[in-house]
Amino acid sequence: MISVTEAIESLLSQSQCLVETEMVRTLDSTGRTLAADLVSPIDVPPADNSAMDGFALRHEDWAGPDVELSLSQRITAGSAPAPLEAGTAARIFTGAEVPPGADTVVMQEHCEGSEAAVCILKMPPKGANIRRRGQDVRQDQTVLKAGQRLRPQEVGLAASLGLAEVPVYKRLRVAVISTGDELVEPGNVAGPGQIYNSNRFIMNAQLSSWGFEVVDLGVAKDDYSEVESMMLDAAGKADVIVTSGGVSVGEEDHVKSVVASLGEIGLWKIAVKPGKPFAFGHVRGTPFLGLPGNPVSVFVTLLVVGRPYLFACQGAESRRLFALKGKALFSRKLTTREEYIRVRSTEAGLELYSNQSSGALFSTAWADGLVRQAADSEIREGETVDYLPFKAFN
Amino acid sequence: MISVTEAIESLLSQSQCLVETEMVRTLDSTGRTLAADLVSPIDVPPADNSAMDGFALRHEDWAGPDVELSLSQRITAGSAPAPLEAGTAARIFTGAEVPPGADTVVMQEHCEGSEAAVCILKMPPKGANIRRRGQDVRQDQTVLKAGQRLRPQEVGLAASLGLAEVPVYKRLRVAVISTGDELVEPGNVAGPGQIYNSNRFIMNAQLSSWGFEVVDLGVAKDDYSEVESMMLDAAGKADVIVTSGGVSVGEEDHVKSVVASLGEIGLWKIAVKPGKPFAFGHVRGTPFLGLPGNPVSVFVTLLVVGRPYLFACQGAESRRLFALKGKALFSRKLTTREEYIRVRSTEAGLELYSNQSSGALFSTAWADGLVRQAADSEIREGETVDYLPFKAFN
Repeated sequence: MISVTEAIESLLSQSQCLVETEMVRTLDSTGRTLAADLVSPIDVPPADNSAMDGFALRHEDWAGPDVELSLSQRITAGSAPAPLEAGTAARIFTGAEVPPGADTVVMQEHCEGSEAAVCILKMPPKGANIRRRGQDVRQDQTVLKAGQRLRPQEVGLAASLGLAEVPVYKRLRVAVISTGDELVEPGNVAGPGQIYNSNRFIMNAQLSSWGFEVVDLGVAKDDYSEVESMMLDAAGKADVIVTSGGVSVGEEDHVKSVVASLGEIGLWKIAVKPGKPFAFGHVRGTPFLGLPGNPVSVFVTLLVVGRPYLFACQGAESRRLFALKGKALFSRKLTTREEYIRVRSTEAGLELYSNQSSGALFSTAWADGLVRQAADSEIREGETVDYLPFKAFN
Repeated sequence: MISVTEAIESLLSQSQCLVETEMVRTLDSTGRTLAADLVSPIDVPPADNSAMDGFALRHEDWAGPDVELSLSQRITAGSAPAPLEAGTAARIFTGAEVPPGADTVVMQEHCEGSEAAVCILKMPPKGANIRRRGQDVRQDQTVLKAGQRLRPQEVGLAASLGLAEVPVYKRLRVAVISTGDELVEPGNVAGPGQIYNSNRFIMNAQLSSWGFEVVDLGVAKDDYSEVESMMLDAAGKADVIVTSGGVSVGEEDHVKSVVASLGEIGLWKIAVKPGKPFAFGHVRGTPFLGLPGNPVSVFVTLLVVGRPYLFACQGAESRRLFALKGKALFSRKLTTREEYIRVRSTEAGLELYSNQSSGALFSTAWADGLVRQAADSEIREGETVDYLPFKAFN
């Protein structure tokens, strides 16, 4: 058996970016992965501007609270100011460019005046209330790095630099195949011995919520030539192939033999619960991940082991899971395999779901995260444990 | 001034679900909001099944490790078993239905045998290795509640119940308008006094990443009839209208007067930094949220104040922000307004971004979350503070 960390690192060491780059509209770039460093072509803000509604003047022109300064111009946001005439003040609004010559802005609450002139009752220090050119971003500054996934704030930042388009990686295409003769699709009647296919739906939903393009190929029956033709189809259409089921050692299935004949396959026993059996290889050069068959195992292994690898194939920065700390409101006996336990966080601490079976999918819907119990450890009630909130992995 | 909590609660008290329901394919339901409780039509699993590859038998038929039991059937996943003949065992695989009459499954590692017969070397307790019918979900059990947002695991769960479609609320349509004569769209040349429009991009990206349908109406120039026609357009096309800019008290703009003339407007000073001015009202009955004009203020107020309201309009369960705890690696002086400080979490604690100006959008890209500093409090280095990771708000 290999550890979860060894499995992840082994996959990452064999990973490479599998997708080309494209330009997309900045407005449509949320969730995409940046394909090149973003260097600012301009200073932001592009000129000194006022942080307040008020009056701009030369600090040295102030002669006291009773001495009027005549108003020589009125500068609204978006207008181009003229140089400030000596001995005068300019009416100015938030975001408006400070006129050449002015060195201070006084907030309007500290002024008294008319359309034509103003008295500054309280003078701030020289330089006050001015946002300096380049204070947010400097021209030629690298503001974002290749590999970064664009959140709303990065989209806004790129726009603030004047960039209408940004270079991103094309979405990684991931083919999804679920296998098993016992599977029947929702909407049909399940006969004796059959169960509804949930793995297909879990994999589709996880992969699309992580921003990948899912190539949904449905279910493969336990038939060599059907599996073979679906695998070839997948290899032609996708950058990576993910399957569920049929990778247990000694199990009777065709996925392993098909992949072995069309490419290469490695079977791992990962020291993890749920999700021990895991296959890795390629089909005619297209990387292949073979997940176990139980729904919770699919959910956990795709999240914990598959996700970092897929993000690497997408050209994205490392996305290993990170853990918070929480207080266990439960005990767990010694485990030999690293265990991912479905829990819910409450004010008092982390609550355990009663049924931790790898078939009990309801546990994952009840839960808001996983507690990671290290191999060869136990958990005692009240202990601090690693807590992985689902929210953090979109 | 009103507090952030008062502002959120006031908006929520005036909120109602603004969207109709529709049926969507379960496969396409990720991120959607459930419009009705989901009640299971079946037991899951639908029958007792084997948790292992092994042998199924009656516990009382075991006569010791040396006594062979003949194999009367072979049950693979997906096949319908016959009742177990007395005194025999059945070969069985993981997930396959346990035959009527059998009460125990023995894992194959504890057995020795041929095609025709098996010796059970080590007998587990009666009932072992069987996943009971209904152990995950019971027929008629309410498994998901209306208002819940569907994560990958809920999508899988709905599929496991055999549901090919689920009832969801239609996506809330949110019209987005940014205002200001100083704004120029990315891709154009910014003239003197002009800045690139980032607010439009921030609002679009935030709203779409939260699952809303954005009706992007672009920029309104500071002209009464242009603002009026855009507001009417927005009210006709969307369920809620969100604007940025032009809501400061005393500011010269047309948004306030247009909204007042077409509906109703309230102007708030929220005790928050960044983002003090905030407008709320309606345009011909369509709710209106008026955000401030600075990019970081837009980002923070839409997240903190707008988001819970919009989720309520979507028919979703409460989405007030939740905070983790972190250790401040910085000090902040007394603040009279609740402050949202851009920080980054490190092994040692939470690091402060140097420029906390509401114009400094780069701070939000540098950061991975916000520290919430309560009104009338200070932060001393080393203290435990409220930390809101951005990751948690998708």
